[in-house]
Amino acid sequence: MDKLDIYEIESKKTKTLSDIVFSKLKTAILEGYFREGEKLSTESIRKKFKVSRMPVREAFRKLEAEGLVVVHPQIGVIVSDISIEEFEEITEVRILLEKYAVKKALENATDKDFELLENIIEEEEKEIEFMKKIKIRNKFHLEVYKLANNSILFSHICEIYDKFGRYIYLHAQYVKKTEKYNHRKLLEVFQSRNIEKTLVILEAHIKDVAEEIKRILINK
Amino acid sequence: MDKLDIYEIESKKTKTLSDIVFSKLKTAILEGYFREGEKLSTESIRKKFKVSRMPVREAFRKLEAEGLVVVHPQIGVIVSDISIEEFEEITEVRILLEKYAVKKALENATDKDFELLENIIEEEEKEIEFMKKIKIRNKFHLEVYKLANNSILFSHICEIYDKFGRYIYLHAQYVKKTEKYNHRKLLEVFQSRNIEKTLVILEAHIKDVAEEIKRILINK
Repeated sequence: MDKLDIYEIESKKTKTLSDIVFSKLKTAILEGYFREGEKLSTESIRKKFKVSRMPVREAFRKLEAEGLVVVHPQIGVIVSDISIEEFEEITEVRILLEKYAVKKALENATDKDFELLENIIEEEEKEIEFMKKIKIRNKFHLEVYKLANNSILFSHICEIYDKFGRYIYLHAQYVKKTEKYNHRKLLEVFQSRNIEKTLVILEAHIKDVAEEIKRILINK
Repeated sequence: MDKLDIYEIESKKTKTLSDIVFSKLKTAILEGYFREGEKLSTESIRKKFKVSRMPVREAFRKLEAEGLVVVHPQIGVIVSDISIEEFEEITEVRILLEKYAVKKALENATDKDFELLENIIEEEEKEIEFMKKIKIRNKFHLEVYKLANNSILFSHICEIYDKFGRYIYLHAQYVKKTEKYNHRKLLEVFQSRNIEKTLVILEAHIKDVAEEIKRILINK
């Protein structure tokens, strides 16, 4: 269970014990440290976190509600499968939400907003470690969609990013590094404020990553 | 707290005590039995449900996570405000998701699917009680969007319906009854399989209800 040591929890409001356990386990599953089909042991997790069984069980239930684990009464708690079908569904919703959000974002974006995005891209370009690069890229996307100025839309996009996360990290394990998805190109088309062109390029970008992930899922 | 007696919980999987309390309180807030600004008392709720304080506190935290209450350390647990701004955001996302879903649904729908929808409309037309009518209408919409065959998209739409719920019930309290939103017209345009016309009518339908709700929010 030492692999959980690497995670820090973004503490928001007061967290209960089960929240903390949930959050650590969730990150570990999303980032692929626990793989599909792997069994999670209540005993080792509760020892690791030095908590009673209750918060661990509560955390399992939350993970189940988010579809990350399946609780089998006889077998135990198993990390749920990832599937091409689910991935295709996620990609479809991602394209729908992000195209809409970027359109709205471009209507609102100021030069100052573009500066902030420019800084994120510079951070991405300097970063060597692939996993950290991915986090910066996600931040870049999310900063753009924030500009759409609709917090409900934004929360839906965050949810999709969460779900996409497991696949992105799977991708990262195979691809290790790639310069192909440098996001400067995306920023440049955003800056052009040409909405039609931006939507075409954004959709192509999402589909391009998605195709690569699908190839990995098929060959896995 | 007797107003909670009217709620039945749709039991899915094994529910914990806090789930049950959460689910009842959530429905009570969504349906307007607890109004914005109203204080929820841990003591009366725990007595009502004959549980200890823990599951009630846990339920409050879940309600807070869904934005339905605000927990003030000094004041207590207050039902959160509904606002025109939030409502407009919800409506915007509703239109985005539902237009996309209905387009996909019409591509997939069989005559048998239309028969099922026809039955729901007949049920709606026979129903006299307005609150029950609303539930049947929601079911009608959701049955259509299920046909889009994307469970991730569907779960996002369900979430939006949940959020929209508080406003719809507010609407119901003022309007009491209306034949204006008979959903047969919607079914007829779905059946025509004219996607372009359907999208126009669906958007007009959502906006029409939304405008009425906004008027209520302004005059409240």
